Amino acid sequence: MLMKGCEGERQIETILRPGERLDDLQRNGYRIIQDPGRFCFGMDAVLLSDFTRVRRGECVIDLGTGTGIIPILLAARTEAEQLAGLEIQQESADMARCSVRLNGLEERIRIVDGDIREADHIFGAACAQVVVSNPPYMIAEHGLLNADEPLAIAKHEIFCTLEDVVSQAARLLKPGGRFYLVHRPFQLTQIMETLRIHRLEPKRMRLVHPFIDKEPNMVLIEAADGGRLGLTVEKPLIVYREQGKYTDEIYEIYGRGRV
Amino acid sequence: MLMKGCEGERQIETILRPGERLDDLQRNGYRIIQDPGRFCFGMDAVLLSDFTRVRRGECVIDLGTGTGIIPILLAARTEAEQLAGLEIQQESADMARCSVRLNGLEERIRIVDGDIREADHIFGAACAQVVVSNPPYMIAEHGLLNADEPLAIAKHEIFCTLEDVVSQAARLLKPGGRFYLVHRPFQLTQIMETLRIHRLEPKRMRLVHPFIDKEPNMVLIEAADGGRLGLTVEKPLIVYREQGKYTDEIYEIYGRGRV
Repeated sequence: MLMKGCEGERQIETILRPGERLDDLQRNGYRIIQDPGRFCFGMDAVLLSDFTRVRRGECVIDLGTGTGIIPILLAARTEAEQLAGLEIQQESADMARCSVRLNGLEERIRIVDGDIREADHIFGAACAQVVVSNPPYMIAEHGLLNADEPLAIAKHEIFCTLEDVVSQAARLLKPGGRFYLVHRPFQLTQIMETLRIHRLEPKRMRLVHPFIDKEPNMVLIEAADGGRLGLTVEKPLIVYREQGKYTDEIYEIYGRGRV
Repeated sequence: MLMKGCEGERQIETILRPGERLDDLQRNGYRIIQDPGRFCFGMDAVLLSDFTRVRRGECVIDLGTGTGIIPILLAARTEAEQLAGLEIQQESADMARCSVRLNGLEERIRIVDGDIREADHIFGAACAQVVVSNPPYMIAEHGLLNADEPLAIAKHEIFCTLEDVVSQAARLLKPGGRFYLVHRPFQLTQIMETLRIHRLEPKRMRLVHPFIDKEPNMVLIEAADGGRLGLTVEKPLIVYREQGKYTDEIYEIYGRGRV
């Protein structure tokens, strides 16, 4: 059944595998195939895409691309020349490839099966101006019951640690290149230390708070290869102005990405 | 004229030195002597005092105490047993001592003349549960015109660097003790790295934004000696709700500290 749905657009909805669904990204007419039983992209991927700065003609690699949401959103919003998404879970990678073809993005986006820990061998060192990652947040040692399940792999550090992601990002980047990461504020100290160990200097940071009077639950970071010391902390990004109602900024971001 | 004003309360206002003034802290009747031509305490000192947690009977050292605002506010708000303020500028230390006597706090607060870089020799190693500092923020190398002026010394890293402050805090703290710092968000990466080098693990962090939609201009950090990895980033602290009008939280903090 693999790839079958990608051949003709008319057939796609009838040949989605059980559990899969087709979501309209409402941007350039782009759509994405997802399976709610496995892992659907969340707000973190959308906010990271919006936070990421890509200049015309740049090459971008997304480490742990899942169903390809970040390359697809960046293809819609930026003038990146080439975008590659690396994914270890075969079925997610298949869905991502299918979405890429469905959107007619084969010329710009390449989905590659593989392990983040081997990214430099897969793509070659110093090959990208931009590396992006929405990696698993959870510490692997916390004792998972179902470590082989797709959702666990996407969310927990089973196949890769923060150190793996950052060290590979550093190897993939051309001199002066930029790495964009979304993660948990709880690990901020560790994130900054790991970045600096790999000569990626944190340059921009934005904290995402569910409400203005709540602790942040996400942090967005831009780090520059060999960058100078000095971090710009941006204004807080607030998700809800009240229960169930997004802030204007979230509507704007979703409008830009049109997810 | 030194100390002269401290003898009798009635004389105090008549014998303030030229340029000095007496400010009512509106807490426990406490007052503080300041000289606007030298350096007056700012909101950073007030917010740091409020952010600092001191338990009953603990000993606190303030590195670079200026006119003693932090020990005086902490004496009012907490049950600290002993508070010491270290200050390299003789005239500021004199004003601080004068304020301490004026407030009848000689039993709890001791103002010591001296260099932060020698704090461990002055106070002894592992002598405090809490160390606080509102250190000079500006990098010394930026080429100062008046490096010998009181205001420059208070604001710029002339007599001590961040490394000096953090390394001394680490030496002064008892095992498990806490270090509280206010600084600039721009240096956050450097702050965290320096703390960890000295085995002070960042545990709480709060960013202070002038307005909700502006970048933060201060960061408050609590680090624990030998603490476990993991940082709680708190909700943002917003200073103004609109031009010239403080937020309720700022009124509450100033109400608690009554400055």
